[in-house]
Amino acid sequence: MAPLKLGMVGGGRGAFIGAVHRKAAVLDGDFTLVAGALSSTPEKSKASGRDLGLADERNYGSWEEMLDRELARPEGERIDVLSIVTPNHLHFPVAYAFAEAGFNVVCDKPMVTTSDEAARLVEVVEKTGVTFAVTYNYTGYPLVKQARQMVREGRLGELRKVVVTYHQGWLATKLEDEGVKQAVWRADPDQAGIAGAMGDIGSHAENLVATVTGLEPSHLCADLTTFVPGRALDDDGNLLLRFRGGAKGVLVCSQISTGEENNLSIRVYGTKGGLSWHQETPNQLLYRPLGSPAQRLTPGQPYLADAAQKFVRIPSGHPEGFIEAFANIYRSVAATIRAKRDGGDEPLQNDFPTVHDGARGVRFIETTVASSQSEKKWLELSP
Amino acid sequence: MAPLKLGMVGGGRGAFIGAVHRKAAVLDGDFTLVAGALSSTPEKSKASGRDLGLADERNYGSWEEMLDRELARPEGERIDVLSIVTPNHLHFPVAYAFAEAGFNVVCDKPMVTTSDEAARLVEVVEKTGVTFAVTYNYTGYPLVKQARQMVREGRLGELRKVVVTYHQGWLATKLEDEGVKQAVWRADPDQAGIAGAMGDIGSHAENLVATVTGLEPSHLCADLTTFVPGRALDDDGNLLLRFRGGAKGVLVCSQISTGEENNLSIRVYGTKGGLSWHQETPNQLLYRPLGSPAQRLTPGQPYLADAAQKFVRIPSGHPEGFIEAFANIYRSVAATIRAKRDGGDEPLQNDFPTVHDGARGVRFIETTVASSQSEKKWLELSP
Amino acid sequence: MAPLKLGMVGGGRGAFIGAVHRKAAVLDGDFTLVAGALSSTPEKSKASGRDLGLADERNYGSWEEMLDRELARPEGERIDVLSIVTPNHLHFPVAYAFAEAGFNVVCDKPMVTTSDEAARLVEVVEKTGVTFAVTYNYTGYPLVKQARQMVREGRLGELRKVVVTYHQGWLATKLEDEGVKQAVWRADPDQAGIAGAMGDIGSHAENLVATVTGLEPSHLCADLTTFVPGRALDDDGNLLLRFRGGAKGVLVCSQISTGEENNLSIRVYGTKGGLSWHQETPNQLLYRPLGSPAQRLTPGQPYLADAAQKFVRIPSGHPEGFIEAFANIYRSVAATIRAKRDGGDEPLQNDFPTVHDGARGVRFIETTVASSQSEKKWLELSP
Amino acid sequence: MAPLKLGMVGGGRGAFIGAVHRKAAVLDGDFTLVAGALSSTPEKSKASGRDLGLADERNYGSWEEMLDRELARPEGERIDVLSIVTPNHLHFPVAYAFAEAGFNVVCDKPMVTTSDEAARLVEVVEKTGVTFAVTYNYTGYPLVKQARQMVREGRLGELRKVVVTYHQGWLATKLEDEGVKQAVWRADPDQAGIAGAMGDIGSHAENLVATVTGLEPSHLCADLTTFVPGRALDDDGNLLLRFRGGAKGVLVCSQISTGEENNLSIRVYGTKGGLSWHQETPNQLLYRPLGSPAQRLTPGQPYLADAAQKFVRIPSGHPEGFIEAFANIYRSVAATIRAKRDGGDEPLQNDFPTVHDGARGVRFIETTVASSQSEKKWLELSP
Repeated sequence: MAPLKLGMVGGGRGAFIGAVHRKAAVLDGDFTLVAGALSSTPEKSKASGRDLGLADERNYGSWEEMLDRELARPEGERIDVLSIVTPNHLHFPVAYAFAEAGFNVVCDKPMVTTSDEAARLVEVVEKTGVTFAVTYNYTGYPLVKQARQMVREGRLGELRKVVVTYHQGWLATKLEDEGVKQAVWRADPDQAGIAGAMGDIGSHAENLVATVTGLEPSHLCADLTTFVPGRALDDDGNLLLRFRGGAKGVLVCSQISTGEENNLSIRVYGTKGGLSWHQETPNQLLYRPLGSPAQRLTPGQPYLADAAQKFVRIPSGHPEGFIEAFANIYRSVAATIRAKRDGGDEPLQNDFPTVHDGARGVRFIETTVASSQSEKKWLELSP
Repeated sequence: MAPLKLGMVGGGRGAFIGAVHRKAAVLDGDFTLVAGALSSTPEKSKASGRDLGLADERNYGSWEEMLDRELARPEGERIDVLSIVTPNHLHFPVAYAFAEAGFNVVCDKPMVTTSDEAARLVEVVEKTGVTFAVTYNYTGYPLVKQARQMVREGRLGELRKVVVTYHQGWLATKLEDEGVKQAVWRADPDQAGIAGAMGDIGSHAENLVATVTGLEPSHLCADLTTFVPGRALDDDGNLLLRFRGGAKGVLVCSQISTGEENNLSIRVYGTKGGLSWHQETPNQLLYRPLGSPAQRLTPGQPYLADAAQKFVRIPSGHPEGFIEAFANIYRSVAATIRAKRDGGDEPLQNDFPTVHDGARGVRFIETTVASSQSEKKWLELSP
Repeated sequence: MAPLKLGMVGGGRGAFIGAVHRKAAVLDGDFTLVAGALSSTPEKSKASGRDLGLADERNYGSWEEMLDRELARPEGERIDVLSIVTPNHLHFPVAYAFAEAGFNVVCDKPMVTTSDEAARLVEVVEKTGVTFAVTYNYTGYPLVKQARQMVREGRLGELRKVVVTYHQGWLATKLEDEGVKQAVWRADPDQAGIAGAMGDIGSHAENLVATVTGLEPSHLCADLTTFVPGRALDDDGNLLLRFRGGAKGVLVCSQISTGEENNLSIRVYGTKGGLSWHQETPNQLLYRPLGSPAQRLTPGQPYLADAAQKFVRIPSGHPEGFIEAFANIYRSVAATIRAKRDGGDEPLQNDFPTVHDGARGVRFIETTVASSQSEKKWLELSP
Repeated sequence: MAPLKLGMVGGGRGAFIGAVHRKAAVLDGDFTLVAGALSSTPEKSKASGRDLGLADERNYGSWEEMLDRELARPEGERIDVLSIVTPNHLHFPVAYAFAEAGFNVVCDKPMVTTSDEAARLVEVVEKTGVTFAVTYNYTGYPLVKQARQMVREGRLGELRKVVVTYHQGWLATKLEDEGVKQAVWRADPDQAGIAGAMGDIGSHAENLVATVTGLEPSHLCADLTTFVPGRALDDDGNLLLRFRGGAKGVLVCSQISTGEENNLSIRVYGTKGGLSWHQETPNQLLYRPLGSPAQRLTPGQPYLADAAQKFVRIPSGHPEGFIEAFANIYRSVAATIRAKRDGGDEPLQNDFPTVHDGARGVRFIETTVASSQSEKKWLELSP
């Protein structure tokens, strides 16, 4: 099966997440990178494109040029998917323009920076019917899909409590002043949006809760903090959550938790059992059924739900990691596009975060920031 | 060295924590149980006392009788310490009466059920000068003392963030209706006080934070819940915390987290490093200094602080547990009494939770309940 | 119930294991120490006895004196049990003499230093019918009893493979030259016997295998090494094992594994499942049934076998440790003596390592040393 | 930089390791698959090649055809590297023929099935000077490289003891009779060679020891077993090892350890410290320096050795797994070929297992089998 043609905006020299997207896209042979507008100036873009072996005629100087010239190609020769891996503030204009022109899109998170933008993007995606994915990559892990499936099947009973924590420490010092590119744009409200840690990693935590539990938050009470002097955005946040139906929750996210690396975990408790999963050891899921021994589930075993197992590549005990989970989004996007195009059976289709997940995430960030700034604190979340 | 003479109120047949107190008291040869008023009726008390081999003349029918008759004994023949291991509502009258009469006291937690009682108890303890300990036993673990010492020595720098979680699942079903004694009185406001999970285990979490960090909370915002239908008190609680000086925190406690056993943990982050400790694997402390490899500290090693090492009994790799941590309170109480009495050098003296810790814990519970019931939510804590 | 009267030989000032025996004996109220000959000279013995509050008339200068004078007491006033906690070379004369005189004995391991001594001791114990326990304390952990029970019930199917490793590092340097008492006698063949690490900890590993699996080794091939220059006995050993019935095994024990503390673990595999247990985290047992999720069993849960659960003191999640496991031997010895004496129902009786376990352990050590010294290497073990 | 051109022999429909090689080769953009002879018959080969999108003219029916026709292409248009992913018995003829013809080779392990073949292959590789890698993939993990570097730098002092264990359970039942392709050829001496578990995974364990420690075994004593009735080759093995210089070791490998997945671990102890690493949680390395706290090292941290860090792709806390480690061999092969070709600076060059590692592995397997079959048992290993 010939790979799909991938274009990319952002992800040039020195970028982190763009390289991850590229590895994820090619890992399983589903995509080939054929076009790009990779950096913020035409010169840098083209240098970055040459590094990656892009053909000159599709190594574009800007995303606008890329859009025009790809559209000018015959239909079967255009890119099949555009990946957007720029700083946050560019997600909206690029995503909107490409989606409107009928291109499928994979967009990094948070999807956009305001809920107005989110609503407009939802509208255009629904109108054009393009495939649109948001790379909340942590929900690409097979055992997260397993957890979701176990909740859906009622193996936890009625859910009561969710605790999600995301501890990072890399911004415990003022790294943005040392020229670290990842830190610089994340600390700049013009590029990152209204939230710092909350937007960067709190949004992953929100998506993890929504994916695993299916619960909808009704109210939240937030306490965001900027610990590092001189930083413009929050670098730490604590939230109380209430869900429709009565469940309660806590969300902790921090980028100043010294010594922590990428410590995202979730614990879910229901009337019949509990679950916990940790991103740094992603190949085990602990399931605690009421009154029976705790179970340690691993990928590749016969007892795994098909919904999880089909995203596993190698036998049990052979660890898959961050890139593989990320690639699961790309595999599902490819399968979805192929199914739409060819009508065939594509088992992996339609299991990735959508524009609706992206929009909900943006509203969550906005409400969190508003709660933290307000006197009232507990705020309602629109569904 | 002859053991000190211990008396006990509560802890008769079917009780859990009384037996733990007794094991803790005798483990290191510091105490012998010589007197008791162990149950709620004279008959049950005496039966329980006979089980334990108490001499008839000191196997009392009630705590009031015990107080009178112990006072009637010659000074050197009275009990040296009274342990109070009744349901919460009896802590105050018993503790007040014995302290007022000049007896040293070890009292289970929460110390009393209102801050008024707490204030009166502080007053009488200060007036009489008796030794008074509250069995917040988790802070008796050597590695908790090590964590406290490392914070004090500045190895974490300025503290920014504390996350303490206490997950239990044993009350996920309505155990109090099945006649389980431990569940029955904890679920009864007349015996337990105004709080359920918050009083029972949230208070341990509060003490752990205070002990390790030395931080004082200035404000809190609480969301307590009763999940099990028909239960009178909270069985789950989530709190946001703000500390004097700017640190922030989260406290989670729950007794409906299905499948969890006694999962208390604390994470502390400062400008120079982070720490984490888990009660279920109490013999390792993870220290993460900024920019260096994480360190796994264990008891019995030469690098341990003397403040921690002196409470370790056996070589590294030989696990000490819950009872040993509990016994460390008794060892320190014994050392303190001996030092006061004999004036000798007692290395273990004065390292146990005091009447002031107990009083602060009670105020914390009250403010938490008030916050959860109030509209305003964020409430100030008096120092 | 009145505690039993305990006497002790060895365990004076500066000793390690004697103090553990004393804590273990009193923890549950089953014993009171009433007599002792605690050190190697009368002066030191009496000083040690005074430290522990022994009455002068039972604070003996030697074990021979103790034997004579205890025998001279009226029958109900003698010690009920003698604990032997001396260096290895004294185990035999003391144990033999007291057993022959009709005293019950708790003896530290290895039981004696030659298989001839072992045979003689078995004979006298069988003749007199005294209760005789050897403190292979690691098999006192509730989850080791659980593992044994699961093997017995066939939950692992037919056993095929056993891997037991005991890594310690405390003798990686020549500690015996620094006057560390524990190291000095263990390094001296006159006190320790023919084996060093193999006798000290390899014997624990052997007992753990025998207890959990019930397998009998038929042949072994050993490679013992003395790594630290100038040391007289082995400080490291590796063994291949063959069991009657066809199972195979490996036993590793070492006291020069730098940085290791007391890392004893066992893995057992059968046709239907596998088990693993680690002494440093003794409160979890991993059970891996063929084709189903691995299970993490913990003490205090309803699914635990009664044979294990009855040795658990406190609820799940409240860690019990080394001393508690040790104390389980004492509890069972007490229960056994009471059952013999009073005929009552004593659920804890008869679950401790016996004189036969001790004798088998001595033969194992001898065969291991012989194999390591021989050219032929693989040697047969007598049953 | 244009990717190198990869050809593949083996790895067609239903194969496991071929797909891993392909993912590993493309992950970092270093290779494109352009040619293949993927299965055992021309028809199956071409069907497999079409699945993977190979152009018809390079989708060969046999490896002999592939060799002829690739040689017939102009020099710059031939494959740059041939990957051999067939069952073991074909490794030699294919590797020999391609290496002799001047092609670079990546060959799966064990490299060949006899030490004669190994010697001939070494000879031809040395003569032609081709780049030749053997995919002992576990030594591609960054933290294995870190361990090797720490040993080289003397941070463990003089090495004394090595314990390597490789527990798998997937062959605990007779899977080869159920038509599982991976099991069928591994159980067939004609395809697998003289050893089963020892050849399949014992060889990985040997390579891990050699890589991390640099020690050379001088003697070994092996006990191989076939547990599953009717199986022709060993499915379990236990080895004692002696190394030149005096260190001792144990190697355990098993494919009948029920419930185990891919549990490979290594523990190394020296006079100054110890190390341990587990493949199932590959992103932490435990270092235990004598007298200091154990350290948990993780990839992506500033303290990591450059030799390890340069093989890390993403920030700390973002798990890399089996495929990434495998891909590190391909990255280094690509860097090596480019450095030879272009003379540029290629930091990743020359860090992969070579033909000499492969040959040593084959000799190790042969000596192990001979020891297990011999009466004498302890056999010398030629260097």
